[in-house]
Amino acid sequence: MVEGRVVLEKATRSMPERLASVLVAEHRVEALAEVLAPLAPGTPVYAATQAVMDRVVGFPIHRGILAVGRRPTPIAEDLLAQAPDRALVVGLVGIANHDNMGGIFRNAAAFGVDAILLDDTCCDPLYRKAIRVSVGGVLSVPFARAGSALEMVDLLQGAGFDVMALSPRGETPLDEFPSRRRTAALFGAEGPGLPAEVLGRIRGVRIEMSGGFDSLNVATTSGIVLHRLARVGG
Amino acid sequence: MVEGRVVLEKATRSMPERLASVLVAEHRVEALAEVLAPLAPGTPVYAATQAVMDRVVGFPIHRGILAVGRRPTPIAEDLLAQAPDRALVVGLVGIANHDNMGGIFRNAAAFGVDAILLDDTCCDPLYRKAIRVSVGGVLSVPFARAGSALEMVDLLQGAGFDVMALSPRGETPLDEFPSRRRTAALFGAEGPGLPAEVLGRIRGVRIEMSGGFDSLNVATTSGIVLHRLARVGG
Repeated sequence: MVEGRVVLEKATRSMPERLASVLVAEHRVEALAEVLAPLAPGTPVYAATQAVMDRVVGFPIHRGILAVGRRPTPIAEDLLAQAPDRALVVGLVGIANHDNMGGIFRNAAAFGVDAILLDDTCCDPLYRKAIRVSVGGVLSVPFARAGSALEMVDLLQGAGFDVMALSPRGETPLDEFPSRRRTAALFGAEGPGLPAEVLGRIRGVRIEMSGGFDSLNVATTSGIVLHRLARVGG
Repeated sequence: MVEGRVVLEKATRSMPERLASVLVAEHRVEALAEVLAPLAPGTPVYAATQAVMDRVVGFPIHRGILAVGRRPTPIAEDLLAQAPDRALVVGLVGIANHDNMGGIFRNAAAFGVDAILLDDTCCDPLYRKAIRVSVGGVLSVPFARAGSALEMVDLLQGAGFDVMALSPRGETPLDEFPSRRRTAALFGAEGPGLPAEVLGRIRGVRIEMSGGFDSLNVATTSGIVLHRLARVGG
């Protein structure tokens, strides 16, 4: 479910063929002509009064713009196989908060991440709020489920990725992590962090912090790590 | 207003003399003995049933822990004068969202920022939600109002700070900003960004991103910038 002008614009540009229909408050139709232009021929665009929209949705929907998209169903193995020779992949374990999920995808889009893998316990990036917080990032960064956290590590190592586990108690400071051809960074939820069996298998990497403070928000952590690893510049 | 065990713990440790009183659900009193130990002698600790607490607060307050603190009133000039020779300061312009305000203070605490200056249009870091999102960071990082954005720049430059303005269209990539003895980083709100008159006065610095994506969340941006500028490690 796509909501608001900014996200609809990302959707019509990056995945027009996956949009099934659009519902817009009638006073906004004219101003959206350019945004709607890339839609596949025949995609229905419904216009309704604000009052009808509010009744359809069930609450006052101030943005006045909604669209239904078809869910992509990529396979984790395929995403890794299709990733370029120099690739940056994110692996998420137990991220159950939609704000954090959206924030991580926003950062992944900003820093050109090639794919995101999710373990079984992550929430759905295509939940409406996660899409909105990601500013459309979940529509542009390919993602797939990858089983348990350990199965994810196996998959990544099998595809030639050097995998790091972000942890406040990681042995290697982020700035000393060597730059590799294919790098994957694993993030766990705030609080529990990554499971011990993952930390026992791959290199733990930490972001150095001031005394007394031991944890950053996970979305912010992903921003710092991806900025450091990205090949977009710097 | 302090809320929850984690923040109360930061408060009793970092500013016990500023806590005026504590209100705790009676079934939690015993488990909080250690957290409450640093309170100044004579600070009242009230215990109430959960039902009474809910009525006092006006909604079900599941955390069952509240405290009232006295607001500090530092002067911006004093904070800069007291900052060490090698100092890192954050300046905020128009940050009106309490989540972002809390997130920025959390990052500032994590990376050892010496002070935060706020222009007239920023929201209050001591709003309950901002305190909670900051995980107590607003209780440990000193901050003060500094007038308009331009007055803030004058103040910082007058105190010997090299001031950078974060902007998606900044000329200098973050990684090329030279390391100085005293550095200040200015952040504006997402959307409007920093005002043109500020960008005309000081060096614009950008975080390089992937094509098509032009903006990060401001709290995430602060995390990336402070990680780069901090002297805590790396």
